[in-house]
Order: sequence, then structure tokens, then C-alpha cells
Amino acid sequence: LRTGVPEVIYAEGKTVEQIVGIGLRLIQCHDNIMATRVRPEVFTEIRKAIPDAVFYPTARIIVMHPRPVAAVGNIAVVCAGTSDIPVAEEAAVTAEILGNRVTRIFDVGVAGIHRLLAARKDLFRANVAVVAAGMEGALPSVVGGMVPYPVIAVPTSVGYGASFGGIAALLGMLNTCAAGVSVVNIDNGFGAGFQAGLINRLATAAASGAPD
Amino acid sequence: LRTGVPEVIYAEGKTVEQIVGIGLRLIQCHDNIMATRVRPEVFTEIRKAIPDAVFYPTARIIVMHPRPVAAVGNIAVVCAGTSDIPVAEEAAVTAEILGNRVTRIFDVGVAGIHRLLAARKDLFRANVAVVAAGMEGALPSVVGGMVPYPVIAVPTSVGYGASFGGIAALLGMLNTCAAGVSVVNIDNGFGAGFQAGLINRLATAAASGAPD
Amino acid sequence: LRTGVPEVIYAEGKTVEQIVGIGLRLIQCHDNIMATRVRPEVFTEIRKAIPDAVFYPTARIIVMHPRPVAAVGNIAVVCAGTSDIPVAEEAAVTAEILGNRVTRIFDVGVAGIHRLLAARKDLFRANVAVVAAGMEGALPSVVGGMVPYPVIAVPTSVGYGASFGGIAALLGMLNTCAAGVSVVNIDNGFGAGFQAGLINRLATAAASGAPD
Amino acid sequence: LRTGVPEVIYAEGKTVEQIVGIGLRLIQCHDNIMATRVRPEVFTEIRKAIPDAVFYPTARIIVMHPRPVAAVGNIAVVCAGTSDIPVAEEAAVTAEILGNRVTRIFDVGVAGIHRLLAARKDLFRANVAVVAAGMEGALPSVVGGMVPYPVIAVPTSVGYGASFGGIAALLGMLNTCAAGVSVVNIDNGFGAGFQAGLINRLATAAASGAPD
Amino acid sequence: LRTGVPEVIYAEGKTVEQIVGIGLRLIQCHDNIMATRVRPEVFTEIRKAIPDAVFYPTARIIVMHPRPVAAVGNIAVVCAGTSDIPVAEEAAVTAEILGNRVTRIFDVGVAGIHRLLAARKDLFRANVAVVAAGMEGALPSVVGGMVPYPVIAVPTSVGYGASFGGIAALLGMLNTCAAGVSVVNIDNGFGAGFQAGLINRLATAAASGAPD
Amino acid sequence: LRTGVPEVIYAEGKTVEQIVGIGLRLIQCHDNIMATRVRPEVFTEIRKAIPDAVFYPTARIIVMHPRPVAAVGNIAVVCAGTSDIPVAEEAAVTAEILGNRVTRIFDVGVAGIHRLLAARKDLFRANVAVVAAGMEGALPSVVGGMVPYPVIAVPTSVGYGASFGGIAALLGMLNTCAAGVSVVNIDNGFGAGFQAGLINRLATAAASGAPD
Amino acid sequence: LRTGVPEVIYAEGKTVEQIVGIGLRLIQCHDNIMATRVRPEVFTEIRKAIPDAVFYPTARIIVMHPRPVAAVGNIAVVCAGTSDIPVAEEAAVTAEILGNRVTRIFDVGVAGIHRLLAARKDLFRANVAVVAAGMEGALPSVVGGMVPYPVIAVPTSVGYGASFGGIAALLGMLNTCAAGVSVVNIDNGFGAGFQAGLINRLATAAASGAPD
Amino acid sequence: LRTGVPEVIYAEGKTVEQIVGIGLRLIQCHDNIMATRVRPEVFTEIRKAIPDAVFYPTARIIVMHPRPVAAVGNIAVVCAGTSDIPVAEEAAVTAEILGNRVTRIFDVGVAGIHRLLAARKDLFRANVAVVAAGMEGALPSVVGGMVPYPVIAVPTSVGYGASFGGIAALLGMLNTCAAGVSVVNIDNGFGAGFQAGLINRLATAAASGAPD
Ligand SMILES: Nc1ncnc2c1ncn2[C@@H]1O[C@H](COP(=O)(O)O)[C@@H](O)[C@H]1O
Ligand SMILES: Nc1ncnc2c1ncn2[C@@H]1O[C@H](COP(=O)(O)O)[C@@H](O)[C@H]1O
Ligand SMILES: Nc1ncnc2c1ncn2[C@@H]1O[C@H](COP(=O)(O)O)[C@@H](O)[C@H]1O
Ligand SMILES: Nc1ncnc2c1ncn2[C@@H]1O[C@H](COP(=O)(O)O)[C@@H](O)[C@H]1O
Ligand SMILES: [Mg+2]
Ligand SMILES: [Mg+2]
Ligand SMILES: [Mg+2]
Ligand SMILES: [Mg+2]
Ligand SMILES: [Mg+2]
Ligand SMILES: [Mg+2]
Ligand SMILES: [Mg+2]
Ligand SMILES: [Mg+2]
Repeated sequence: LRTGVPEVIYAEGKTVEQIVGIGLRLIQCHDNIMATRVRPEVFTEIRKAIPDAVFYPTARIIVMHPRPVAAVGNIAVVCAGTSDIPVAEEAAVTAEILGNRVTRIFDVGVAGIHRLLAARKDLFRANVAVVAAGMEGALPSVVGGMVPYPVIAVPTSVGYGASFGGIAALLGMLNTCAAGVSVVNIDNGFGAGFQAGLINRLATAAASGAPD
Repeated sequence: LRTGVPEVIYAEGKTVEQIVGIGLRLIQCHDNIMATRVRPEVFTEIRKAIPDAVFYPTARIIVMHPRPVAAVGNIAVVCAGTSDIPVAEEAAVTAEILGNRVTRIFDVGVAGIHRLLAARKDLFRANVAVVAAGMEGALPSVVGGMVPYPVIAVPTSVGYGASFGGIAALLGMLNTCAAGVSVVNIDNGFGAGFQAGLINRLATAAASGAPD
Repeated sequence: LRTGVPEVIYAEGKTVEQIVGIGLRLIQCHDNIMATRVRPEVFTEIRKAIPDAVFYPTARIIVMHPRPVAAVGNIAVVCAGTSDIPVAEEAAVTAEILGNRVTRIFDVGVAGIHRLLAARKDLFRANVAVVAAGMEGALPSVVGGMVPYPVIAVPTSVGYGASFGGIAALLGMLNTCAAGVSVVNIDNGFGAGFQAGLINRLATAAASGAPD
Repeated sequence: LRTGVPEVIYAEGKTVEQIVGIGLRLIQCHDNIMATRVRPEVFTEIRKAIPDAVFYPTARIIVMHPRPVAAVGNIAVVCAGTSDIPVAEEAAVTAEILGNRVTRIFDVGVAGIHRLLAARKDLFRANVAVVAAGMEGALPSVVGGMVPYPVIAVPTSVGYGASFGGIAALLGMLNTCAAGVSVVNIDNGFGAGFQAGLINRLATAAASGAPD
Repeated sequence: LRTGVPEVIYAEGKTVEQIVGIGLRLIQCHDNIMATRVRPEVFTEIRKAIPDAVFYPTARIIVMHPRPVAAVGNIAVVCAGTSDIPVAEEAAVTAEILGNRVTRIFDVGVAGIHRLLAARKDLFRANVAVVAAGMEGALPSVVGGMVPYPVIAVPTSVGYGASFGGIAALLGMLNTCAAGVSVVNIDNGFGAGFQAGLINRLATAAASGAPD
Repeated sequence: LRTGVPEVIYAEGKTVEQIVGIGLRLIQCHDNIMATRVRPEVFTEIRKAIPDAVFYPTARIIVMHPRPVAAVGNIAVVCAGTSDIPVAEEAAVTAEILGNRVTRIFDVGVAGIHRLLAARKDLFRANVAVVAAGMEGALPSVVGGMVPYPVIAVPTSVGYGASFGGIAALLGMLNTCAAGVSVVNIDNGFGAGFQAGLINRLATAAASGAPD
Repeated sequence: LRTGVPEVIYAEGKTVEQIVGIGLRLIQCHDNIMATRVRPEVFTEIRKAIPDAVFYPTARIIVMHPRPVAAVGNIAVVCAGTSDIPVAEEAAVTAEILGNRVTRIFDVGVAGIHRLLAARKDLFRANVAVVAAGMEGALPSVVGGMVPYPVIAVPTSVGYGASFGGIAALLGMLNTCAAGVSVVNIDNGFGAGFQAGLINRLATAAASGAPD
Repeated sequence: LRTGVPEVIYAEGKTVEQIVGIGLRLIQCHDNIMATRVRPEVFTEIRKAIPDAVFYPTARIIVMHPRPVAAVGNIAVVCAGTSDIPVAEEAAVTAEILGNRVTRIFDVGVAGIHRLLAARKDLFRANVAVVAAGMEGALPSVVGGMVPYPVIAVPTSVGYGASFGGIAALLGMLNTCAAGVSVVNIDNGFGAGFQAGLINRLATAAASGAPD
């Protein structure tokens, strides 16, 4: 029934044995098998069983059986503050592994709007943007109002008190008054990078109608 | 700062005078000016001032100064039950007015999975899908697991009791275990149709990098 | 125990008899008695008993025994969309009745950031700003990041679906990453205008340490 | 007042002494005394006092004074992902200890609907099903739409962000559009297995009108 | 894929034309077509088109093309207060139309526990019970602790203040400390009666493994 | 302004130094100074500075400068399960220290209603009852329906999943259909014991119109 | 099982026929039968069938078969603002009908603390107080800190925006830092008056251990 | 775009390297660089790299490159209980570092209103107050009703059970019936001290129309 989507292992709550087991099975027939939400000590164990595995520590992503992929098109991955970088990196690395070119535009939150305006040129080169923000989650609205292409918003759990672990940011993004913005789950950098990758591949000549 | 996005009037909570005023100003320089969330009696009043306005009653959308637009690409607009049709139609009509071809696949909710499986051929022809569902909101997960392209999920407020006016469906969609699904606000057919339109235009040769 | 704060009648849920009764008692010793949340038909009744009462329909405010007040200092009252105007006007009229000069800057929501940037000059002339917004409630963060003075944020109940009657905007404002922003209750234009008035009077030479 | 229901010890938040004390008292007159929510280190202590106790580690269940029970009828225990297995096993082991035959159908989540369709034959042999799922919790709706018998749905706390510890899955299941589905508390595998056992025993000839 | 479940029309939010249309189509091949959530004035219209339709006003259920059904087994339908009767009747009538014998035990709420104890004999004759309660929703716990068979709990929206339209009752039922209780959506008498019917038919000799 | 209420130290979140400091100051002029929410290791430290301090470990209460108090009247302290005992003991010990006689009736939850009925005689001897329960929190409704005197209900945080740390029990108690029940905060055994003590002293001849 | 509590009819959601039916049955054997939550037009109908019924319009209470009752002891019924008076009156009239003397202290909210301090003398004469407040619900904390007797707090649904229909007041009261305060449901003046009546009767010589 | 607001580092969730890096860059051109939410062990590390850094442990604030600042005007920093002191100190130290004189009025919660009344003289000397409180959060309403100047309310996360980590206090403050009160996020002492500082500087002659 399903075509063209690579297998991705969600490592959270799986044992090392389970991750290695799935990984060893998948690399029989595939390259670039990703696992997300991997802690450093888990990686150390995995590399014992799968020596070619590489780790992206900020993004908490492992790639098993890595092979070079051509980077096509252009995805802007934007975030509001330094605390949002892990989620933004999860999106960026996911998109890169799936064969997309990525432009990172970090630390451009709305309380200093000049920083975002200064990044305008980079922003306008993309086909699609991932925008990650915690606290009030206002950045996707501002970006969505500037660019003519789709924006995938990711609320992060950054904040305290009435941020309620990302709910404030999530609600802000769902209620955006900018058209062309859709939203994924709190801290779901993987989902945002994956969705942006699907869109970017649709937009590039290389993509003959379907991702991968 | 902003380019290429047509003006759209959100009619909810505006008086007839306000809608007509904004409409008359916009049609000086633009065609196909949309107003969403329009009740029939409001349309009757608007047509007195803007005689060429046309009304899509199920979608609750008015177009002022309509002109023919070529329909490019293919967007699947899918919904779970008959009660979700108004939201699905808001998405479909929005996308059509913005120049996209739309395939409607209605009443294929997950409690009778054979109905969705029967519609597979139509589903696989699209570049992107809008999937609307109320109650448990499970349909986007199933569709997202079948198709290799982006899915824009719209929770609807259809349901009672613990559906909490669409919250149950919204949470279900945000927590989808299918990759390639992003979500808009409850009952926001317009936002889903707009976002799908941006993606479909990126995917078609006719789209020279930006909608409209 | 309490000094210097004028009596204000909260008319919501009071009968015409109750409002007129309180009003007649207060105008024995005071001028400019305000009543907030007054519907037009209630005003019609009140004017029969208190003929000099004046009505600000958008702000839903009545003033009984009006006398001219000098307008000191400068309060910017800013709002995101046209639907937020009733709340913004409640703030502006409250502040004006309490003797403050007000500059209105309306319809400058974050999804079109150029509109706010264009209003910069007006904005920078004030001592304090009231900023009203519904939906994602992002405007106070952007304004708060631009101006060096206090911002009083008012979430409005404008929106639908996951706006939850103003909760999304409220949470956004409480989680602002801009310093110098504090928040009042949803739709509480009166409270914001009152608080801004206290601050503006502290900032003006005429204010000898206490409002009024 | 009460008949036929075996004593079951809920170990969470009880000390080893309390569990052993209750256990020793019950095995005076009963066999197959269950304790649920038992951590491995607690089991180690309990076995010192009750040497014939056996432990089901994935299900976190202990049985004291085990005796063989005939397994009657057929209960399908279904789960969406590998992370849901502990809850599914709690249901399955509970049902087995109470004398029911169980068929396990694991890792058949809705984002890959072909996996569930492939298990159809096993599914249709049962009298009743327990269906456990986290995240969006959509699996019981799909199963409930396929089978003609009662489905007991168990939301699990698997997920992150807007899954809110199982609330998203719980709401999804309560709002199912499939008839014949009822729901137990989040992670309550015991309750689901117990209820399914009552139903299965009603359905089997061996059951002379009441469980046990 | 699906077998043996009769079509049921959920009338809420459907027009008379839609209900009649579906009804006329279904009675070509089926008897006893149910529509739930029907208001009296809607029934008046439906009877014009489908003259043999009968109405159960308290249960808000219509049956089109009614034919006698043998009533097998025994389902106890229990409710706490008179305000819960409409939901209890929706369950009872649903079960009766689907061919089950029903015993009604109404107005036996927990604040007067003697009333429930007095009904013990009737209660113990059933194979399964539906228990409806609003406010604190404690009745299913007490019933579930007394009887040795499955209990289907239905929270009702009866109450005010912190009952939150049935949420208090729903949470109470999900957290029951009685084993053998599962729960359906707030006010979902139909779902409870349907599920109890499936169980009762499994329990009766006449039921050859599937309802209908 | 305030009379007759003994000082009580809420130890949670206070350092040993702070607790000892307040304690030493208070025992200059008072006996029987209570501190609540004291962990064992904190008591060990406190006894070094205040050697006559005594500790009630289950209740987590310390009394400094203890002196014998006559126990007047009768308060029933009732709880549903063994996990509720710490909260029930906090209530009981508080009441005892304040000079009230207490009857403990533990482990009489509603899922086995015969246990409560068996304790009826003890229950009817009291002037007032404290009733603690977690999970569905139904016990105060049943007790409140049986006794002719005031019931103070205490929800406990015992439970999991949709018990939400005591919210389910709290809502159940607030929505009780029994008259004569009022509620304190989740796990607030102190508050319940204190309030019950005030009532019991009003009810006893020894109480000359005010507690203590 | 139950003694001494008079029958009280909760009229909300009952038809006139139901209320009259229950009333006629009860007045066979009792006097002073109360019905609460009665709208004026319902009273008009009831008086046709039960001519001696009297109506307390602000309290929305009817008494059927009224007979004089001696008023014993003293209950202070306190409220914060004029909008809280209906709930306060429901408490006061309930207590009076049940044979208690009541002192009303209205419009003494915490934003003008001098008003409460001025009423101190009246306050201190009571055995128990009912304190009703909406919005932030702070009044019971202040009263509870002043008086040495039990306080029954009633949150009211007065307020808007983040008052959430009384939730803000309810939470404030549950979290009171004053000992001796317990809480009833939002707007439950009846419950508060009833509970205060039970306590007041315990405190008076006339009360031979049980109300009525 | 932005003028006059000093850089402030939010240390929560940043590594020592990140904090030191930002600090070293800022002290090139500024004095008195603040970092908030600093734990003691983090300070120990920072002082190794920036030896002149000073630490305010209760406030959890570091100042790098400290220089004396004249203290102008007067801000009252008020709190309800000793557990609220860390948040109150964060506000007080923030205000002091930004050049404001601060008067601390601690432990004056509403359950002992005489303590607040005794502090009246100090309270009335200020231009603006910060009022911190947890649990029911009632103190800002009482203070706001007494003083004629702006009050900035800070809910704290002090409390348990239905305080929900500060939500009860937050809602109480947003629903205050006192005019002249605005609110910041839960535990946001920094934001309150900053906002009060902006207002105090507007109010002092030294402030030539703008803070700093
Ligand atoms: N970080 C993530 N967040 C959400 N979904 C994920 C994440 N990583 C992987 N997934 C999805 O989870 C599926 C695998 O789940 P599992 O079978 O539990 O490993 C993949 O197909 C992905 O779509
Ligand atoms: N629109 C409003 N929103 C919030 N508070 C208000 C409003 N209008 C007046 N108030 C406050 O309500 C108080 C009067 O309440 P009341 O005594 O019920 O009329 C005044 O002192 C004001 O502080
Ligand atoms: N009162 C009800 N509550 C919940 N589900 C219902 C109800 N009545 C009918 N249904 C379900 O709704 C389905 C029909 O929905 P629809 O196609 O929208 O008419 C039926 O198959 C039933 O399973
Ligand atoms: N366990 C408890 N729960 C709630 N309130 C308490 C508790 N223990 C003491 N208190 C109250 O807290 C007040 C003392 O608070 P504090 O000044 O912070 O020690 C006392 O007057 C009591 O009313
Ligand atoms: Mg855009
Ligand atoms: Mg997909
Ligand atoms: Mg600023
Ligand atoms: Mg089924
Ligand atoms: Mg049972
Ligand atoms: Mg009672
Ligand atoms: Mg007191
Ligand atoms: Mg004030």
C-alpha cells in the first residue's frame, strides 16, 4: 500500500537491543536508516553492533549505513532562540538525510524583529520553511506573513510557567492569522523536517513527482 | 515585504458594510476576491452592492469579481463523514479559486476502512491531500500512511461529549504516527485549502515558484 | 484606606435600575462616572433617568455627568485586527475619560509586519502602550521588543477553534519573550486602559505622584 | 454482596510488606492470586516470602500460588506499536490467568493499515478484542469497524508533546465513530483484560453464566 | 470487511432530507432501521415520507420499517437520577430494537444507597448492565463492585458548575476502582446499549456468535 | 483580628533552619506546635534542636512541646483504600492534637459497599466525618447520603492515568449529589482535620463557642 | 439508612409536571418542602397546583406547605459583589427554611478591604459563615483568616474571560492559605447553606445532635 | 529598532559555555550584565571565566561587570509567604540592578490581613508595587484595592494539589476585581521587576522620559 517513505526508527522508549535489531534488519536492504531521539549513551552501545553508524548529537539522530545523498532544492530551517536549536536541528538533519538542501536561520525571535528582517534574503531563497519556536510561539506567524511559500511550524517545549510544556506555543501556531502555515506536534522536529522534505522534493526538477 | 498572496476577507464578526467596503476597495485592483465564513443572508446583502459576487453555500465562501482560472495539478480533498463536508468544501473551493484542480473523496471514515481502500486510485493521483475529520480524527493517520506525499489535516468540530468541539480530533492529528502530516486549526478548511494550494503549485510545471 | 481611584460601574449583569441607582448616587459628589459593558438598549433606558449621560457605542462605555478633562501625556492603543477594535476602544475611551491623551494604531497585526513598522513614529511618541490582539496574540511581543517603555497586553476573544475564547492569545502574551510586558484578563480593555492611565500620569509633570 | 471475582492486588504505592501480607492472607483460601504493577526488585523481595510466586516481567504481574487453568474461548489482544506492548501484555496475562485463551496481534498501527488487514483471519476468530494504542489512539476505531463483536479499548501513555500522557489517545477512543467500542483508563491493561475475560466467559459454553 | 452490524443513522446535524434519503435507501433491504438524536419536529417531517416510522420520544430514537424482534437474554439498564433517564432510555431502546430483553432500574443514585440495595434481585438476573449517571458519576463503581458480569458505564452531562458538561462523571467512571467496568462517551446511550447488546447476545444460546 | 487558631507550620519547601527557627519562637508561648508535611530526615534534624519534638511518620506531622490534651466529642476519619491512609492520618492526627476524639474507619471503598455498611455503627456515633478517597472519589457521596451530620471530603492524589493527580476525585466530590458535603484541596488532610475539629468542638459541651 | 434530612427538589431540568408530582407526594407527610433553581414562570405554574407555595425570587427557591420554623443560632452569609447576591440568597434562604438564624453581609469584596473590616462585629457573632465570591474568589481566605469558626466557601460563576465560569474562583478557594475553609460546587448556594445549617445546629443547644 | 534595554541572559537550559560566551561578548561594551535562573554550581563555573561576577543566591541572579548604580524612586516588592521569597527576590534584585530603589514587604498574606495593614505606611511610599503570591494568589487584589498606583502581580508555583503549579494563583490575579493590576507569567520575578523598573523610572525626575 505504501511507497517511497524510508523506514525511520523512533528510539525513545526502545531498548538498545530493540533498536539494533530493527537497524540490522533494515540495513540488509536500505541505506541511510535513521533513528531519532537517541541519547549519547545509547549511540555508544549501538556503534558496537553497527560500526558505521554516525551520530548528530544536537539533533539526537543516528544514521546507519550512511551513503552520500545529493542535496536538492532549498529548505529554510528557522528558530526563535538558542534553546530551540535541538528541535530545529532535528528538522534540519532529517531533511538533509532525506536528500534536501537546508539553510539554517537561527536565533531570530520576534522580540527583536530586526534580526529576522536582516535574514530576509536567505529566507526568500527557499521553497518551504520549518519554523521552530517555544514560549509564545509567534515566529511562524511573522515568517508566514513574509514568505509566499508553505511554512511548517514546530512548537517547542521551551519556556516555563504558563507555557505548559509547549501548549502556549502550539495554540499560538494553530491560531496564526497568516495563511500558509500548518503545524506539527510539540518538539516534533522530525515530523516538520520530513514534511518540508516532501514539499521541497515536489518543488524541485529532480523530484519526478514523488519523494525518494 | 509580502508578495503573491491574494487578499482574503474573513467575514465572521464583520458587518455587511465592512465586508462590502473592503470588497469594493480590493476589486479596484484584483479579481477573484474571496470572503470566507459568509452566511446566506449576508450574501444577499452583499450582492446588492457587488452584483457579480457568487456564493458557494456549503463552503460559505463568496467570490467577488470572479474570472476563470486554469486548474493545475491535483489536490485530493478527503473527509470522514457527511457532517465534515462543509469544512471539506471550504478547503476545496478555496483551492479551486486559487487555481488548483481538486478531487473530492468524501464519507470514507476509518470505521469502514473498505470505503477508503476503494478510493485508493483517486487518492494516488494527487500531489497533496487535505483530510478533514471530526470525532476521533483518525483518518489523516490512515491516509498519511498510504500516500507518499504531504497531507494537511483539518480537525472538525463534529461530535459531542468528550469531542470538546474538535479538541479530540485536533489532538489525534497532532499525535499521528504517520510521517508527512501537518495540521491546521479546528474547522479551518480555508487554511488547509490554501496550504495545499501552495504545495500543489510548487509541484506543477505551471507554478513558476510562487502561487498566483 | 483607598484614595484617588474614580468609581467605575461594571454594567454586565446589572439591571437598568441597579445601574441608574448607583449612577444617581455617585453623581451627587463626582463627575465623569463611567459604566462599562453597556449595551445600546441599556443606554436608551439610562438616558431617560440621567439625561446628560453620553455613550461610546464601540467601547460600550457610558459617562454620566461628563465634564471636560485635560488630556496629558500619551498612550498608544494598538490592535491587531478590526475585530479587536471594540476591546481597543474600551481601553482608549477609558484612558481618555481618566485624563490621558491617546494615539490609536489599529489593524497592524504580525502577519503583515510592514504595517507595524510603518507606524513606528507614532508608537515611539508614547509613554506606555496598550496592545490588544486575539488569535495567536503575538503583537505585544513584537511591540514590546521595539519600544523602551511598558506595554500592557490585552488578549481578546477573537478567533475560533483552538483559540478557546482568548486562551491562546492569553497564554501567548504571558509567555512573551519581550521584557516590559504585563497582561490583563481576556477582553479587559477597561483594565488595560486604566493601568496604562496610571502609568502615563506617573510619567507626566502634571501627575503629582498619584492619578487623578 | 459480591461473588465470583478473584482478589487482585494493585501493588503500585504499596510496600513489599503490605503486598506480602495481603498475599499470604489470600493464599490461605485461594489460588492464582494476582498482583499488578510490580517492579522487578519488588518481585525479588516477594519471592523470599512467597517462594512459588511467578513473575511476568513485561506485564509487570505476579501470580502467587499458581495452578493450571484451562484456557477457554478466544480473546484477541491487539496493539499499535512496540511501545504499547507492556500494556497489551498486562491485558493478555490478566486474561490468561483468569482462564481465557488469548491471541496476540501486535504492532499493527493504523499508519500501515496493511499490517492490520494481514491479521484479519486471527482477528475474526475471537469473541472479543482488547485494543491498546497510544499517540492518536485510532486503532480501536478501525478494529471496531471490522469486527462484529465487542472491542475494549485501552489508551496508553506512549507519545510526547500533545499526547499529554495518553489523553489524546483516550479522547480519540471515547469519540470513536465505530459502534461496539468501550474504553478503560489510560494504561489500564488489567481492567481491559479483566472486562474482556468476563465477556469471553459469557460467550463460551464452559461459562455457566458467571466468570470464575 | 464488516459483517452483521445494522446501519444506524446519527440524525444530529443532518437535515430532514438527508435523514429521509438515507432511510429510504436502507429500508429497501433492511428492517428496523434506527435513527438516533431525533427531535420531535424532525420526526413529524420524517413520518410524512416514511409513514411506518415509530418514535421513542424520551430516547429520541426513530425506527423505520419496524418488525417484531424476539427479546433474548437480559440487560439491566440502571440510572442514578430522573435527569439521566433520556440517556438511559437511549441505551434501553437501542438494545431492545437490536433484539435484547431489557430490565430498567432507574433513580437509584449513590446518595441513597438503600435504593440500589433494594433493586439487587433485578440487578443480579442480567448478563450485563448499562449504568448511566451524571454529576459525580459514582454509580457504576458501586454496581461494578456488586455484580459478577460486565458493566458499561455512560457518563451523562447532567450537573452544573464543576461537572463541566459530564467531564466529572466521565473521569470518575474511567478511574473506577471496580474491575469489570468500561466506559463510553458522555451522553452516548446508543453506544452503551449497542455494546451491551453485543455482550448479551454472546451470552445467550440464541446468539450464534454475532449480533443480528 | 484573629483569635484562637493555633500556629501551624507548613514544612514543605522550608529548610530545617527555617522550621526550627519558627518552632523555637512559637514554643516560647505555646504548646503543641504542629508542623505538617515533614519528611523523616527533616525530623531527625529538627529533634537535634528541639529534643521534645515527636513525629507521626504516616501523617508526616511533628509536634513540638507536646502536652496532653483532653479528647472531646467524636470525629470519624474514613478512607477508601490503603493508599489513602497517609492523607487520612494527616487529618486524624491534626484533629487529635487539636483536642478531638477520632474514630478511624479505613479501607471501606465503594467497590465493596458491604465494608462500609458493616462500619455503620461506628460511623453514626460521630459529630462530623472526614472522608478521604482517590481515583473516582465516590466515597463521600455514599457516606454523605447515610449520615445526618457534616462530611468534609478530601480528594487524594492516589490513582493513575485519567485520575490526573487527584482531579478526578476532586471533581467527583464537588459534584456530589449528597447534601452536607464540602471539600478541601487534594491531599489536604490537615485542612480537613482542622475544619472537622472546629465543627466537633462547636458540637461538644466543652466547646464554649470557639475552638481551643 | 438515612435520617433527618428533608427532601429537597432540584428543579433545574425537570418539567412543571414532575416538580408538582414530587411536591404533592411529599407534602402528604412533610412541611416546608423546598425546590431550588426555580424560574418565575415555573413558579406561576406550580402555584396553580399547590396554592400555598411561596417563592423567593432572588434565591430561586419555592417552599411548599410552609410552616413557621424557629430560627436558632447564627450563620453569617457573606458575599463579595452585587452579582454574587443570587447565590448568597440561595444559601441564606436554604438555611432559614431549615431553621437557622442568618445574618447577611453583602458587597464586601477584597478590593475594598475596609468594607469587610467595618462588618467585623456582625461577622464575629456567628457560629459559621458561608462566603460567596466570583472572579478571583479571594474573600473566603480573608474571612477565614479573621474568624475562629468554620467557613463554607461558594465560588460563583460571576466574571468573564479567564474566570472560566467560576473555575478561577473555585481554584482560589481550594488553595486558600487560611485553615478552617471548605468548598462546595460553583454556584451551589443550596449546598453551602445546607452544610452551614448542619454545623450551626450542632453548635446550638436546641440542636439535639441532628438537623430537623 | 530597539533602544535602551540592557541585555539579560536567561540561563535556564543553557550550558555554562553558552552563558560565559554570551557574557564575555556583552561585557565588551556594557556593565551590569544580568543572568537569571542561575543555579549555584553554574555560578561556580562562571566565576572561573568571569572573576568579577557576583551572585544573588536567593534571587538566582548573576551580575557580570558590576558597577554601582544610583537607586532612584521607590518600588514596593511584596510577597504573601516565605516560600514566595525567591520569586520576590528575583523581582527586587532585577529592579535594583536596573537602578531602582526597592522596599521589601514580605510574609503579609491575606489569611492574616492585619500583617498587610501594619505595613501600610511603607506600601504608600512607593510609585509602583510588585506583588508575588502562590496558592490562591489573592494578595494583589487586596494591595491593588489599597494603593493608587500600578501593581504588577506575579503568581508563584508555591502550593500543591489544585494549585496546579501556579495556575490557580495566575487565574486569581487575571480575574482581580481591583483596577490597576496587570500580571506576568508564573514565577516570572524578573519580568515583574523589569516592568516595575520601567514604570518607576518614568515616575522619577531623574528619568528624562525613558528608562535607562
Ligand atoms: N521523533 C519522532 N517523532 C514522531 N514520529 C517519529 C519520530 N521518529 C520516527 N517517527 C515515526 O515513527 C515511526 C516509527 O515508529 P516505531 O515503529 O515505533 O519505531 C516512523 O515511521 C516515523 O514516522
Ligand atoms: N469592564 C470591566 N472589566 C473588569 N473590571 C471592571 C470593568 N468595569 C469596571 N470594573 C471594575 O469593577 C468595579 C465595579 O464593580 P461593581 O461593584 O460590580 O460594579 C470597579 O471598581 C472596577 O474596578
Ligand atoms: N447517538 C449516537 N452516538 C454515537 N454514535 C452513533 C449514534 N447514533 C449512531 N451512531 C454511529 O454513527 C454511525 C452513523 O454515522 P453517520 O454516517 O454520520 O450517520 C453509525 O454506524 C453508528 O455507529
Ligand atoms: N498541610 C497543609 N496544607 C495546607 N495548609 C497548611 C498545611 N499545614 C499548614 N497549613 C497552613 O499554612 C499556614 C502556615 O503557612 P506558613 O506560614 O507558610 O508555614 C498555617 O496557618 C496553616 O493554616
Ligand atoms: Mg505566507
Ligand atoms: Mg505519508
Ligand atoms: Mg520593551
Ligand atoms: Mg464493531
Ligand atoms: Mg464487577
Ligand atoms: Mg448527609
Ligand atoms: Mg479561620
Ligand atoms: Mg489600585
